[in-house]
Amino acid sequence: MTTQMIILNGGSSAGKSGIVRCLQEVLPEPWLAFGCDAFVDAMPAKTQASAEGIEISADGVVNVGADFRVLEAAWMEGIVAMVRAGARVVIDDVFLGGAASQQRWQKALGDVAVLWVGVRCESAVAAGREVARGDRVQGMAALQADAVHEGVFYDLEVDTTHAESLACARTIASRIGRP
Amino acid sequence: MTTQMIILNGGSSAGKSGIVRCLQEVLPEPWLAFGCDAFVDAMPAKTQASAEGIEISADGVVNVGADFRVLEAAWMEGIVAMVRAGARVVIDDVFLGGAASQQRWQKALGDVAVLWVGVRCESAVAAGREVARGDRVQGMAALQADAVHEGVFYDLEVDTTHAESLACARTIASRIGRP
Amino acid sequence: MTTQMIILNGGSSAGKSGIVRCLQEVLPEPWLAFGCDAFVDAMPAKTQASAEGIEISADGVVNVGADFRVLEAAWMEGIVAMVRAGARVVIDDVFLGGAASQQRWQKALGDVAVLWVGVRCESAVAAGREVARGDRVQGMAALQADAVHEGVFYDLEVDTTHAESLACARTIASRIGRP
Amino acid sequence: MTTQMIILNGGSSAGKSGIVRCLQEVLPEPWLAFGCDAFVDAMPAKTQASAEGIEISADGVVNVGADFRVLEAAWMEGIVAMVRAGARVVIDDVFLGGAASQQRWQKALGDVAVLWVGVRCESAVAAGREVARGDRVQGMAALQADAVHEGVFYDLEVDTTHAESLACARTIASRIGRP
Repeated sequence: MTTQMIILNGGSSAGKSGIVRCLQEVLPEPWLAFGCDAFVDAMPAKTQASAEGIEISADGVVNVGADFRVLEAAWMEGIVAMVRAGARVVIDDVFLGGAASQQRWQKALGDVAVLWVGVRCESAVAAGREVARGDRVQGMAALQADAVHEGVFYDLEVDTTHAESLACARTIASRIGRP
Repeated sequence: MTTQMIILNGGSSAGKSGIVRCLQEVLPEPWLAFGCDAFVDAMPAKTQASAEGIEISADGVVNVGADFRVLEAAWMEGIVAMVRAGARVVIDDVFLGGAASQQRWQKALGDVAVLWVGVRCESAVAAGREVARGDRVQGMAALQADAVHEGVFYDLEVDTTHAESLACARTIASRIGRP
Repeated sequence: MTTQMIILNGGSSAGKSGIVRCLQEVLPEPWLAFGCDAFVDAMPAKTQASAEGIEISADGVVNVGADFRVLEAAWMEGIVAMVRAGARVVIDDVFLGGAASQQRWQKALGDVAVLWVGVRCESAVAAGREVARGDRVQGMAALQADAVHEGVFYDLEVDTTHAESLACARTIASRIGRP
Repeated sequence: MTTQMIILNGGSSAGKSGIVRCLQEVLPEPWLAFGCDAFVDAMPAKTQASAEGIEISADGVVNVGADFRVLEAAWMEGIVAMVRAGARVVIDDVFLGGAASQQRWQKALGDVAVLWVGVRCESAVAAGREVARGDRVQGMAALQADAVHEGVFYDLEVDTTHAESLACARTIASRIGRP
């Protein structure tokens, strides 16, 4: 079955964005990349910092509210519609709710052919990379490293603790279903 | 009729992004903002600089190719699907093809209730703002200032030459259809 | 006397950065641009958000501490040394302490030939531009619009309320002393 | 002898910036961070893309001209003056000229106590990270990986091929001379 969509799930600073850029480079066709960061950026500034939208505490705890859920559901429907309209799409997401997050995607996906990819990184290593990148609230990486994978099933898992983004991308690319 | 979507069209450096952020601030509901810049960012780096994707010459001429068109059509379908799924969406776009660009949106929109907004700015003023922002190829603003409006119809036009982004946003917000 | 350095002072969102980029464009020689934002970025993340360093409250009040002052004094000495070594430098700064801030620069400047420029913008207009740019804590523009000019003397003042960045830059450029 | 300044040299995408941010985190005192990227950003846009300033070819070759050299010399003098005025400074630089680049710093440094650090990364790994970061001209990493170290002496070398930024930073921090 031809893979139409790739969904990467992993904690903050696990290296998802780097893998996505490498995937876009190594895959011969042009794949569009979207992710939860761009989705949050699309929300009004006032929603990005509200209980109804999304809040990130000083120690890295992320909470989302009712407005976020409504917009997220519509966003997922829209992304899947892009795929049905012929675009190949790679998503990087953070399943804050673990299995419940994956079910939200599944509800939108219907019969779209997805490759589910878990992006792992040892908690301490991800926490160090969070310091090195310098643009994230410290604490998110450690809090999310294991929690986002709870109850989630994958077609494939990669681990960036000791593997480079490009190597992970090549592993994922080799698993893409082709006609 | 309740406005479900706002589409802003204007040349580079006409001030669309600033108006969008102000719209998101003054509109009471959370509107998602997407635009052609974010769409281009979603493409692979190698597509962003190719004849099949999008090319920006050193003097600011923008050319798009076949891959761009295919992805753009799917992206438009997806954005409209988000709206049908309940999200309010504001788009900022640059109608490089004038009326033909608007027709591409219309094909995707069906019966979705759109407010079409033209964002004007005198060519010389936009060119000056292009220098001031410092992150665009010089020449785009002047080349696009008038061309993007050719043959395009609007519900409303704003002009940033002498009006602030926030004032333009308030004008637009006052024209939103409500239930 | 040949102007060796230009120091722009104005509140947040008054339009200093845009004027600086236009100045760099219209001045025939290559001028280096530095500013308080880049200075703060040069500090450790942990200092950027500490009472000893710099703190920005949720309503836009900026407080700086002892570590900030020590580093700032050294930074000013270094910038002036660059000028003495032959670089032309334009600075954009926010004189949170008004006249006291200007005196800190004067202490470092010695006999370097400076053009002092006040960048004014009506408080309400700056506050609107703060919303439009979307990357600043709301409230800073209004709090700083007048306060930063208290007791400060200038060779020249520009007002971005109704003038474009490029026009302001040309006015400033026309006042540069030349050999 | 108390270390007053740390100078890191390494090729593009070797991981210098990440090490710098980690150093700023692990060092107890507030160290200011400056680098060649910020220096280039301080130049006029027109100088950044000129034969007299700096040019980066489509395949990653970097050439600098006479204006660049004059400004760079003044910039180095200014950075060293900041250190003499009491600031601790960490620099990340790319010694395009190898030993000649180091000699330019030495000329400015006088008797300032510097810790020289070489940041190595295997060429192929750096090239992969260049793809993953997505904001650099491809080819720079491979071209610079070895060339920037030619004839340069160090107090300490770290290698990011298999070591994390935070671990490298801790190694460097342990070598800081203290009173």
